[in-house]
Amino acid sequence: MEYLTNEKLVIVGAAGMIGSNMAQTALMMHLTPNICLYDPYGPALEGVAEELRHCAFEGAEITFTTDVKEALTGAAYIVNSGGAARKAGMTREDLLKGNALIAEQFGKDVRAYCPDVKHVVVVFNPADITGLITLLYSGLKPSQVTTLAALDSTRLQSELSKYLHLPAAEIVNCRTYGGHGEQMAVFASTTKVDGKPLDTIIGTATLPEKDWEELKVRVIQGGKNIIELRGRSSFQSPAYLSIEMIAAAMGGKPFRWPAGVYVDNGKFSHIMMAMETSITKNGVEVMPVKGTPAEEKELEKSYEHLCKLRDEVISMGVLPPIDKWHELNPNIR
Amino acid sequence: MEYLTNEKLVIVGAAGMIGSNMAQTALMMHLTPNICLYDPYGPALEGVAEELRHCAFEGAEITFTTDVKEALTGAAYIVNSGGAARKAGMTREDLLKGNALIAEQFGKDVRAYCPDVKHVVVVFNPADITGLITLLYSGLKPSQVTTLAALDSTRLQSELSKYLHLPAAEIVNCRTYGGHGEQMAVFASTTKVDGKPLDTIIGTATLPEKDWEELKVRVIQGGKNIIELRGRSSFQSPAYLSIEMIAAAMGGKPFRWPAGVYVDNGKFSHIMMAMETSITKNGVEVMPVKGTPAEEKELEKSYEHLCKLRDEVISMGVLPPIDKWHELNPNIR
Repeated sequence: MEYLTNEKLVIVGAAGMIGSNMAQTALMMHLTPNICLYDPYGPALEGVAEELRHCAFEGAEITFTTDVKEALTGAAYIVNSGGAARKAGMTREDLLKGNALIAEQFGKDVRAYCPDVKHVVVVFNPADITGLITLLYSGLKPSQVTTLAALDSTRLQSELSKYLHLPAAEIVNCRTYGGHGEQMAVFASTTKVDGKPLDTIIGTATLPEKDWEELKVRVIQGGKNIIELRGRSSFQSPAYLSIEMIAAAMGGKPFRWPAGVYVDNGKFSHIMMAMETSITKNGVEVMPVKGTPAEEKELEKSYEHLCKLRDEVISMGVLPPIDKWHELNPNIR
Repeated sequence: MEYLTNEKLVIVGAAGMIGSNMAQTALMMHLTPNICLYDPYGPALEGVAEELRHCAFEGAEITFTTDVKEALTGAAYIVNSGGAARKAGMTREDLLKGNALIAEQFGKDVRAYCPDVKHVVVVFNPADITGLITLLYSGLKPSQVTTLAALDSTRLQSELSKYLHLPAAEIVNCRTYGGHGEQMAVFASTTKVDGKPLDTIIGTATLPEKDWEELKVRVIQGGKNIIELRGRSSFQSPAYLSIEMIAAAMGGKPFRWPAGVYVDNGKFSHIMMAMETSITKNGVEVMPVKGTPAEEKELEKSYEHLCKLRDEVISMGVLPPIDKWHELNPNIR
């Protein structure tokens, strides 16, 4: 069996539904035979390792451990879905602080045990924030950390496909940038529907303005809808797309969707958010984003939302003030 | 995106954990873009379809329906994991009868809606029996129906790999035939460990007889162990392996493990059980099984166990007596 690389891929949160699917997906994509499953929850972790061994992926060498040092030592690539889920009685702030602290410890562990890691994909929510915290505490370069941000774009494609009764393949280059969900900025002008720009269709009989607004609500509520339908959070789609991202970072197939990336370009600064990117063996690169003036305005609003969330984490004391970031991670200006 | 075929693949039981993983696996393996998800439980089914659309598999055209006629019409390939799970208070006989009746209806539906289907893989338990019932009621040829039977063999490989501290790749051709679990016949002589036949190692210091007996118990209890560790039945491994089977039936990569197949060769007759097989575009073919005299004796015992189970289903009235099988399905002698 040919694999893309022999380097070590660590799945953090491998006992969970997303993590266990990520491990299977990575093996099925033949990314690397060298997969280490990490999770603090040992019994389920062992169960996942057993299941994957029972698949008998040719040439695979699956290891698992509840020891983070053992897991991360020698890691070349990491995908982390190891956040906590919101529990009854928790406020949004409780969840934010809990996962922010998990990201801080993860960043510190990366710095301590695998400073030579090549690329890290952060999946747990709010990923723009947990990714930013990971970047700062790990000491990695901005090009080495991305977050899963593609789901709003793929959900836009899916909703358009259903509404217009067209195969998804005829709806090309769906793009949302900035934050997630209600904070996302939809760039309708980038989407081509059967060859025509989506923004020239919105407001016509094909897609009246009112229906478009309702469609956007369905995109925003895509995750909530899965919970209602399946009785559990989505796990197949975040797992699959985040492994597509790490595949690109390994030098495999280019990733076709926006990714969350650290941005500091004058217009947007000291923030992690969904942008047009290119992910290659050399890491992630921010690409130009071009939309209509209204779309660019929407992206600015989305950026401002994210800045508020970031500032909340700073005021919690999980992140230092921005002018101290360089001390925490010299790769940050 | 290149797919192996454009023919319709139907996943029966697609709302469940095995079924939803099968659909993702089939798309990731690029088997066909033409996947229909069927399940009587509509909301979760729609949730699975949504998740798969959010993966944005290139070129995929995923449909879903709770209408079995709509699902099966035009089907070229079917994988069925749509059995019922054992519930509190149910006896083993209740479960057997329940799933036997589900298999009977499935067979009748295949005959009614897709008599031209090319291959059907049956996954739900007891698969030797549900597969047999499917074959008889569908009117298909014995070469067109297989059951998932590989897990005992892959679990044997996994347990040997762990016990001997060798990579799974050095433990080749693990084979169990006949029934599942306690009824399985382990053909240790077929397995090569680092080039040596396993049966020459059993009883030596490398693998003392007592340890081998304990190892076999772990293989038998592999499924139970997953439930204890993960708190749920295994789903990744049965999903992956059954899609490997249908891939072979589509003319893809050869399937590397035993499969459950209808056997009527004089020695074993009117039974579905795990045998050495070859699965190709022309269907499944039973291959010779060769073991030591003790192993062949074990296989005979396993066959006898299965005959009892089959006769139980006949006495329940779900299957007619063997001498009437030909009337039900002229492809059965």
